[in-house]
Amino acid sequence: MKIALFQGPLDTDRPLPDVDRRLQRAADAARQSAAAGAQLLVLPEMFASGYNLGRERIAELAQPHDGGYFRAFAELARSLGIAILYGYPERDGAHVYNAAQLVDRNGTACLHYRKTHLFGDGDRACFTAGDAHSAVVDFEGFRVGLLICYDVEFPENARHLALAGANLIIVPTAQMQPYRFVPEHMIATRAFENLAYVVYANRCGREGIYEYTGLSCIAAPDGRLLAQGGTGEELLFATLEHAELDAAHQANTYLADRRPALYQTLTGTVARPFAK
Amino acid sequence: MKIALFQGPLDTDRPLPDVDRRLQRAADAARQSAAAGAQLLVLPEMFASGYNLGRERIAELAQPHDGGYFRAFAELARSLGIAILYGYPERDGAHVYNAAQLVDRNGTACLHYRKTHLFGDGDRACFTAGDAHSAVVDFEGFRVGLLICYDVEFPENARHLALAGANLIIVPTAQMQPYRFVPEHMIATRAFENLAYVVYANRCGREGIYEYTGLSCIAAPDGRLLAQGGTGEELLFATLEHAELDAAHQANTYLADRRPALYQTLTGTVARPFAK
Repeated sequence: MKIALFQGPLDTDRPLPDVDRRLQRAADAARQSAAAGAQLLVLPEMFASGYNLGRERIAELAQPHDGGYFRAFAELARSLGIAILYGYPERDGAHVYNAAQLVDRNGTACLHYRKTHLFGDGDRACFTAGDAHSAVVDFEGFRVGLLICYDVEFPENARHLALAGANLIIVPTAQMQPYRFVPEHMIATRAFENLAYVVYANRCGREGIYEYTGLSCIAAPDGRLLAQGGTGEELLFATLEHAELDAAHQANTYLADRRPALYQTLTGTVARPFAK
Repeated sequence: MKIALFQGPLDTDRPLPDVDRRLQRAADAARQSAAAGAQLLVLPEMFASGYNLGRERIAELAQPHDGGYFRAFAELARSLGIAILYGYPERDGAHVYNAAQLVDRNGTACLHYRKTHLFGDGDRACFTAGDAHSAVVDFEGFRVGLLICYDVEFPENARHLALAGANLIIVPTAQMQPYRFVPEHMIATRAFENLAYVVYANRCGREGIYEYTGLSCIAAPDGRLLAQGGTGEELLFATLEHAELDAAHQANTYLADRRPALYQTLTGTVARPFAK
């Protein structure tokens, strides 16, 4: 499967979101991606609306999972015959979630996820935390699960998806300075330790006080980066191969060698061990 | 606290272990480390005996936790006033464990651990797997826990130690080709995601079919490598600071932001989620 990752948009000059402009950039990227033969285009966290906009503006921009953002991306996907994964603010009754949705090439929603691990006061002011992991679904011959940004920094979350059978973990993100360590080392580690592809699609430029790191990457299950962005707007491509997954499982037997009985502390159901 | 890490010995020419020669190298390294002001010397996995020796020879070389290896390292520690962490084959009744022990500067054993995650047929042929995590103990103002080699490649194990309060995770190892990814990316990730120092003391050179990678490292809680070895015999130093731990906890609130209720799958107590 060939996938495309759009690192952008480059927000430097506009303090407020311009949804039409963002959808236009998505359409440009989707057209280029489809022309290059990609079957999937991955967009960053909160791509549809912008991210660092404050609680009130995010609440205004939030839409149901089958609302305007969905209709726009579904139409784009169907018209170009390419699947699209996008981040957006989801309205559900009184709640607003930091969400991501995958629409397939027919424009059908096939996977939806609400960020479970909110980052800092900004996220917490704007969003309700999701209470469930992403499902893992069949997609173009791969088994796909979703995380959003801060979620992937917790090894428990990627591990959960791997144990649920995911071999492709897609992570829309809005990673800012000074957290370059995450794209530079942690994403490849998540891929390596879980024998899965990890696609980490980041923003770039500035949005208020946030300076996004760029450095989006696509990590293979052996830890190699198949593609890595710089700090500007960019369209990255990589081809994912079942043979590479098989080779990783030959080289590393992490999932079989786990000893779950020793991991009870991680669920908080066992008292903190008495030290010394 | 200043610590020293001995990457070695360089085994290239001798098919069988020479315990006296290994202890001599430890004494040289301990003398240099103490002279440089280090309070702790960390030696690799199975340093005392050698590692890739086959089941029978390992069984012959195995000793109780308070046996000859302990007496030799305790005497060395006491005579030089430096703590020593060493790997060795432990005999306990019918069982042989891949073990590590920390002796303090008075020659007192203060922490002992048996490798829980055995690597491949070689480890499994020679050793019984340990059934418990390392305790986390106070040591020179830090909270220390142990892992051995393959253990650290499972994010669950370092996480357990961090949740038990460890801010210094010491990992004697015998990492071989082609697993350079581990010292190059994963060790720093373990430090970063757990807000702890990670000391990864590896072998170098060859031992039978194993070609050790060297690349030992000491990772800070912000993911920086304070020291990294090359591929030969080497003595590395780093100074660990409480201020660096405090800064990491300011920058990253991973331990507080965890959501244990979402990690049930990791313990194997919940059925594998139904996919799709």
